[in-house]
Amino acid sequence: MQENAIIRAVTSIDVARAAGVSQSAVSRAFSPGSSISARTKQKVLAAAASLGYRPNRIPAIMLSGRSYMVGVVIGGLENPFYATALERLATALQESGLQVLLMHVDDALTLDSALDRLVSYRIDAIVTSLAIGSKSVVQALSQLRLPVVCFNSSHVGPWISTVNSNNHGAGLVAAHLLGQRGVQRPLWLAGPVRNSASRARGKGFCQGLRVAGLAPALTRMQGNDTYDSGYDAIACLRKQGIRPDGIFSSNDMMACGAIDALRECMDLQCPRDVVIMGYDNIPQAAWRSYDLTSFDQHTEHMVARAMELLDEALGTKDSPLSRTYIVDAQLIERGSTGSGQ
Amino acid sequence: MQENAIIRAVTSIDVARAAGVSQSAVSRAFSPGSSISARTKQKVLAAAASLGYRPNRIPAIMLSGRSYMVGVVIGGLENPFYATALERLATALQESGLQVLLMHVDDALTLDSALDRLVSYRIDAIVTSLAIGSKSVVQALSQLRLPVVCFNSSHVGPWISTVNSNNHGAGLVAAHLLGQRGVQRPLWLAGPVRNSASRARGKGFCQGLRVAGLAPALTRMQGNDTYDSGYDAIACLRKQGIRPDGIFSSNDMMACGAIDALRECMDLQCPRDVVIMGYDNIPQAAWRSYDLTSFDQHTEHMVARAMELLDEALGTKDSPLSRTYIVDAQLIERGSTGSGQ
Repeated sequence: MQENAIIRAVTSIDVARAAGVSQSAVSRAFSPGSSISARTKQKVLAAAASLGYRPNRIPAIMLSGRSYMVGVVIGGLENPFYATALERLATALQESGLQVLLMHVDDALTLDSALDRLVSYRIDAIVTSLAIGSKSVVQALSQLRLPVVCFNSSHVGPWISTVNSNNHGAGLVAAHLLGQRGVQRPLWLAGPVRNSASRARGKGFCQGLRVAGLAPALTRMQGNDTYDSGYDAIACLRKQGIRPDGIFSSNDMMACGAIDALRECMDLQCPRDVVIMGYDNIPQAAWRSYDLTSFDQHTEHMVARAMELLDEALGTKDSPLSRTYIVDAQLIERGSTGSGQ
Repeated sequence: MQENAIIRAVTSIDVARAAGVSQSAVSRAFSPGSSISARTKQKVLAAAASLGYRPNRIPAIMLSGRSYMVGVVIGGLENPFYATALERLATALQESGLQVLLMHVDDALTLDSALDRLVSYRIDAIVTSLAIGSKSVVQALSQLRLPVVCFNSSHVGPWISTVNSNNHGAGLVAAHLLGQRGVQRPLWLAGPVRNSASRARGKGFCQGLRVAGLAPALTRMQGNDTYDSGYDAIACLRKQGIRPDGIFSSNDMMACGAIDALRECMDLQCPRDVVIMGYDNIPQAAWRSYDLTSFDQHTEHMVARAMELLDEALGTKDSPLSRTYIVDAQLIERGSTGSGQ
């Protein structure tokens, strides 16, 4: 107990004395973004390490009201796209001296249930890939003066900013590419109805098909963004006697399921009998069994825009920020549209 | 500004008055695990909602030293196995009234770099799928009296508990199954050398092959747990003129790469020419292009054991807990070993 008592008693004063600097220098060495020379910081960190000192952020949170914690609300990590996006986001937040208070919600589409618990930790902001499901949440955010940055959300409101992939534009490009490939019987494999990004992709695709004169031939199938739902959609088409020759899938997971069902249920090969493209450019799109043309959302750019929005929102704490960034998705052509290596 | 000042001024006293309960009842209504009747809690929550009151955990953290935050340190989310495990873990922690302070590290194998920043938030414990890379971290954990629960780690030390998949046992089972399938030229596709779970799987596999009399024929290839490394390992074997007829891969990602390379580079089909099995039972193992036999680690059981260890460690705060649970992995047979639907 004696030894433990000694270890627990190490304070910033002890570190300051050992490093030969002021107590304020010790505090700055452990505060993200503080003004301190590299040399002084190094001295403080060395002294802290040798004494076993670790700073305590909690008093600073009480005094300043800033916790340097950002609530990150996520769901649907079974889609590798979201897992990769979370990695990039967590890395960017950490590099900015912010910590991630993670909230996982089973319903991948609403933020509502997460809010109450997150805010009791006095987070500085929220970043989420989920939609905001109700007006009461928008109202709560305003009351709390809590900035939120959403990815691929259609919601607007004070304190809510958004970084969206150019979903509509990508739909146009998809229709153009299928037209170029001579497609006559296009299929739109949609994500869940309440997924606004999927709706925008579908609208762009339909508009592009109208331009190409292909709109009347369009078949629509509804999936839920999973591999199985893509597989089942194709199996269902087979029963209806419909054979598409060009498919735009709202995400890659469904596209992979569709490719497997085309092979197994219809004996159709990509790209010989049917061309197909997805969205997200997940790692599996490049796997040789799929070799799937896809749109890369450039999550690194989207995360960078989100960090800019956070910076601005936290810098102007007293006025609501409500801005939307659109990041163009890049078409990555692979074998599934006959454009392989 | 006037309106904002009023909103910010809502305190637990106001809520207590509106609900007709004591201030302590309000506090208990917002404290995980507190003794309070459902009826009283409901009254408090209704009053809090109508007033726009949200509790503040920070003063309680200062007073009790418990933050109800658990540091979760992760890496390698591009492997769907870790993404799913993180979802399950986050859900279990949240259901126990604990919050997740997430730390992502690029190096998927060491905890060291994350520790300093996490502890400044006075977390109650750490849960991680990463190995503990150095003795200084073990020492720091002891100094901090900070319980750690590791998944699939070989490290032991005071304050460190572990939940491991029965990696060695699964290796034995894999060898037995390949023997049953008449394999004569087995291949062990290993993960990174410093991945102790992979080493244990390999040891079990070799031991099982010795029992079956197949050990002398064994080929070993080294991967890094990615799809590409599995693909490359097979492409490399082809150049050496080696044709395996049975493969145990340390994880599913490498196994998927191996299946694609067997098809493309060697014109070998699974299971006709070669049987193959992986580990983790990621969603892609069930995708029809792979139909991969795999070991399911039962992350739901592993997470449940981790929660028990956390409970115990947090309940006996003053004495170090160092315990290991082993959870059997379940063989999921699919087409890649000729056992499919």
